[in-house]
Amino acid sequence: MSKILAITGGVGGAKLALGLSKILSADELVFAVNTGDDFEHLGLHISPDIDSLTYALAEENNQELGWGRAGETWQFIETLGQLGGENWFRLGDKDLALHMQRTQMLRSASTLTEATAHITRAFGITHTVVPMTDDAVRTIVHSDQGALAFQHYFVREQCRPAVSGFEFAGIESANLNPIIAETLEDCRGVIICPSNPYVSVDPLLSLPGMREALRNIPVIAVSPIVGGMAIKGPAAKMMQELDVPASAPAVAAHYGNLLDGFVMDLTDADQRSEISVHTRVTETIMNSLQRRIELARFCVEFLHAL
Amino acid sequence: MSKILAITGGVGGAKLALGLSKILSADELVFAVNTGDDFEHLGLHISPDIDSLTYALAEENNQELGWGRAGETWQFIETLGQLGGENWFRLGDKDLALHMQRTQMLRSASTLTEATAHITRAFGITHTVVPMTDDAVRTIVHSDQGALAFQHYFVREQCRPAVSGFEFAGIESANLNPIIAETLEDCRGVIICPSNPYVSVDPLLSLPGMREALRNIPVIAVSPIVGGMAIKGPAAKMMQELDVPASAPAVAAHYGNLLDGFVMDLTDADQRSEISVHTRVTETIMNSLQRRIELARFCVEFLHAL
Repeated sequence: MSKILAITGGVGGAKLALGLSKILSADELVFAVNTGDDFEHLGLHISPDIDSLTYALAEENNQELGWGRAGETWQFIETLGQLGGENWFRLGDKDLALHMQRTQMLRSASTLTEATAHITRAFGITHTVVPMTDDAVRTIVHSDQGALAFQHYFVREQCRPAVSGFEFAGIESANLNPIIAETLEDCRGVIICPSNPYVSVDPLLSLPGMREALRNIPVIAVSPIVGGMAIKGPAAKMMQELDVPASAPAVAAHYGNLLDGFVMDLTDADQRSEISVHTRVTETIMNSLQRRIELARFCVEFLHAL
Repeated sequence: MSKILAITGGVGGAKLALGLSKILSADELVFAVNTGDDFEHLGLHISPDIDSLTYALAEENNQELGWGRAGETWQFIETLGQLGGENWFRLGDKDLALHMQRTQMLRSASTLTEATAHITRAFGITHTVVPMTDDAVRTIVHSDQGALAFQHYFVREQCRPAVSGFEFAGIESANLNPIIAETLEDCRGVIICPSNPYVSVDPLLSLPGMREALRNIPVIAVSPIVGGMAIKGPAAKMMQELDVPASAPAVAAHYGNLLDGFVMDLTDADQRSEISVHTRVTETIMNSLQRRIELARFCVEFLHAL
C-alpha cells in the first residue's frame, strides 16, 4: 500500500507522530527519525529522538518532565553523582535499560534499525520506526563557545551558547536507511513534523540522495514556530542567533522548494502572505491527544488535496 | 606501622572485615580482596567481592537480601527484562551506578586498585581495600555441566551444578597487588576471613609469590564451616562434591601448613583434636555488629599470641 512517511525529531515532532499513528495503520505510515543527536555516553549508545518517539507512541512519555519516560526513578544517576561520575545527562533507571538493551544489540552486531525494531515491538508499537541511517552521523553545533557535540550543547550547556552554524559529521558517507528509500518509492506524501528544522530535520534532509528521493512526492511541513516562539526546544533562539526571523514564514523559507505545502498556526495567520508555497492555517498547539489526532488528520487531508 | 592483612571474599568474610575495621585503625589494617569472581556483564566491569566488602564496611549492605546494597530499587533490571535483555544477574539501580563508575574509570586507564580507592573513599571508608591483583584472573568452575564462568555457576545456575574442580584463568601471569606485597613486608599477621576456601581465598593464595610472601608471617584462618554447613554460600556443598568432609578440620587441612592458627566455632569443639595446627574455639556466627567486633578482637589477640 502506498505509504506516508513522517519525518520527526524528538518530543515536539513526536506529538504529531502519535496523532498520525492513531489515524493511519501500520501499513500506511513509516516514521523516519533523526539520529544526528545520537551519542555515546557511559559506554551506552543513546538515541534521544528515537527514544522520545518510542515513549510517545507507547504513551509512556513523561508528561510532567516533558522528556523521558513516565514513572521514572533516578537512583542510578543520583548514586553515580555521589560516586563522582558524570551525571549531567539525566538517565532515569528505566530509560537506562532501553539504552543498555540497544547497546547490547549493537555490540552483538545488530543494526540500529534492528535494535529499534526490537525495542519498539517490546513497547507494543506496531508502526515502523526507523533511524534515518544505520551509519554514525553526529550533529556538531558551532557556537560562541566553539564546536560542541549536540548533547553537550543541548543538555550539558542547556542551549546557552549562541549558535553560528551546524555540521553533520559523517553525513557524506552515511547511507539513507533502505527502509526509508523503499518507502519513498511508493509514497503518498511526506509530513515533516513540527521539529527543529536545523538540528532535527536537516540531518535527515542532508543524507545523500534524500532530497532527490523527495522530488516527485508531495511534502508538507508543520511549523514548529508559533507566535515567534518554539513550542519546545531552542529553534526560535537558534533562528535569532542565525539572524533569521523566528517566524513560521522563515521556517517555510528554510525548507524552500522542497515543500509543496506548509501548515502554520492560527496565531500567525497574518504572516501567511509572506509564504510562497501553498499554506493552510489551523490550531497547531497539541496539548491533548485529541489535538494531536486533529492536526494529524488535517495534515493527511492537506497532503491528499495537493 | 606494622599492619594486619585481612584476606576476604564477599559477604561472609566481609562480616569479620567490618569487625576488624572497628577495632583497627586505617594505619593498622589492609583488606586484600578476591577478584576471581569479577566479570564483564552488559559492558560493565563487576567486582562482586570488592563491592560486598565496600557495602559492608560502609554499613550500606542490604541486610534483608543478604547481598547487594541497602535501600536498593530494581527499575533498571525489571525494564531490561521487559525489553528482552539479560536479567539473570540482578543489578540494582544504585549498585549499577557503582559498576558504571568503576567501568568508566577503567576505560579512562585507571587501575582496578585506583578505581577501588576512589569508590571506597566516596563511601567514606578510610581503610585500604585492594583487589588481589590489577590483572584479569577469572575463576572457572569445572562441573557436571562443563566449565562455567564463576558468576554463571554462582548466580545464573544458582550453584546447582556439582563441582569437580576450579581453575583461575590468567593466574600465572597475574601480578600480586604491590600494596599487598608491600603490606606483607612489615606485617603483624594475616587473617583469612571466613570466606569460601576454594573460590574466595584460593585465587589470592594462588597468585605467584603470595605463599612465599606469607612464609614468615603468622597466618590464621576462621572456619566458614560451622556444624557441617556454610554460614553463607556453597562451600559445604562444594566440599561434599569434592569428596571432602564438610567440616572445620577439613578447612584447616585445606589451608595446610600455610596456617599458624585456626579459629573454629564452639559447635564443632569436639572436632578440635582432628586439627594439627594451633586452634582456638569461640562463637563465630556474626549475627550482630557486636559479634563481628568480638570475633575480630578474638582473632587479633590470637595473632598476637602466636
